[in-house]
Order: sequence, then C-alpha cells, then structure tokens
Amino acid sequence: MHFDHAGIATDDAEALAELYADLFGLEIAHEEEFDGMRVVFVDCGNGYFELLEPIEEGTISRYLEDQGPGIHHLALATDDLGAALERAREHDVALVDEEPRAGAWGHTVAFLHPRDTGGILLELVEH
Amino acid sequence: MHFDHAGIATDDAEALAELYADLFGLEIAHEEEFDGMRVVFVDCGNGYFELLEPIEEGTISRYLEDQGPGIHHLALATDDLGAALERAREHDVALVDEEPRAGAWGHTVAFLHPRDTGGILLELVEH
Repeated sequence: MHFDHAGIATDDAEALAELYADLFGLEIAHEEEFDGMRVVFVDCGNGYFELLEPIEEGTISRYLEDQGPGIHHLALATDDLGAALERAREHDVALVDEEPRAGAWGHTVAFLHPRDTGGILLELVEH
Repeated sequence: MHFDHAGIATDDAEALAELYADLFGLEIAHEEEFDGMRVVFVDCGNGYFELLEPIEEGTISRYLEDQGPGIHHLALATDDLGAALERAREHDVALVDEEPRAGAWGHTVAFLHPRDTGGILLELVEH
C-alpha cells in the first residue's frame, strides 16, 4: 500500500484548491460532484489533497458543523481492496464499509473505523 | 512540493506503528526521541506516517488531552523552505514559525497557521 490522499473538509473547495495550487505550486487534477459534495483533487505529485465541500446535508456538512474545516481522513491505495478488508477483519478492526463501494473519481473505496486505527478515519482506495 | 507525511498524535507510537505495519504491509523507517516526544516514522513508500507520542508536557500532550488521538498535521516537502515561507508571507498566510527550525529526523521545518490554510496545520519540510 502507499499514501493516496488526505481528505479535507472545507466550505469552499474551489478557493482552497486555488490557494494550495498557488502557495505550493500544485496542480488541480480533477473536480466532480459526488455523493452530495463538490470534490476537488489537488495533485501533490505523489498523492492528492481531496477537498470535500458539501452541497447537500451529509457526513461532511455535519463534520463542518461539529469540528469546522480541517483534515477529515487519510487514504492508502491498495491493489486488492477485498484482501485489505479481510486483513482488517482478521485484526478485529471495525469497518465503516463492510464491502467495497464506489468512491469519488471512479475509485472503489472502504473506510476503517477510527476507534481501531489510532483515532484516524482511514480510507482504503483501489484505483 | 510533494506530500511528505501525515503527523498523528498517539498515546502509544510503538503499538500504532506495529498495527499500521502489520495491517497495511508497511515498514517502520525511523524512531527517535525529539522535543519531548517519541517519534516513529512508518514508511508508506511515497511518504510517511509520523507517529507522535508525548513523553513530556507539550503541544502533543495538550492535543491528546483536548482532542484525543488522531491526525495532527500534514507535511509537504520542499527544496527551498526559505522561499516557501516567503511565498506564504506574500499570501498573508500566518506562520507558526517565522524562520525554519530543526525538526525530527534531522530535517528543517516550519509550520503554517491553520487559520489561513483551510483549518489544517501544515508543515513544510526541507530534507
């Protein structure tokens, strides 16, 4: 596995993407609307910042209400998401998603529960 | 610039590093005591998880008391930290460190203030 992206909850994905692009010399790689969010991927060369702006009520709008903007999750890329989930089950790591599901940018994803991963919401991504 | 690491506050860096190594097939790359913390770098191939366990009262012990364990900061690597800080100043981004300072693993680092970076504590690292 390797680092894939850091998911960042924001009220304005476009403005934050432009700030990161300008401040750090990064490129905007992909934008879409997905699952009630505007999602903007900023390319760090070896991974992405995934900026998540809610356009409907949902997980990220509630996160913003509770915590304000900031780092929402970390994602690791895997070639075999099914095997990675099986390995998590063997380690008694609680799963948010029991089965792989569709994620942004056409990827397949599953989230592990923060209570068993050191307080971190960890996403596994298969491209 | 490119992704360097995600800094993670934890009560037990050793146990968390072993969990990540085992669960995700990653290697522990470096361990040291630095600035009142046990610091363990887990190698993701294209970046690191930097696990931060306080051994003295300080930023991370206070973070753990306030927020519990979780993602503390994100770090981008740069070849020219001085120029990166100058660029941040030009964008009126508040700096935690006005000048580069010594970081873990012999790196030179400076932190940008979350209020101007979308709620994210962002570290710039020069190796």
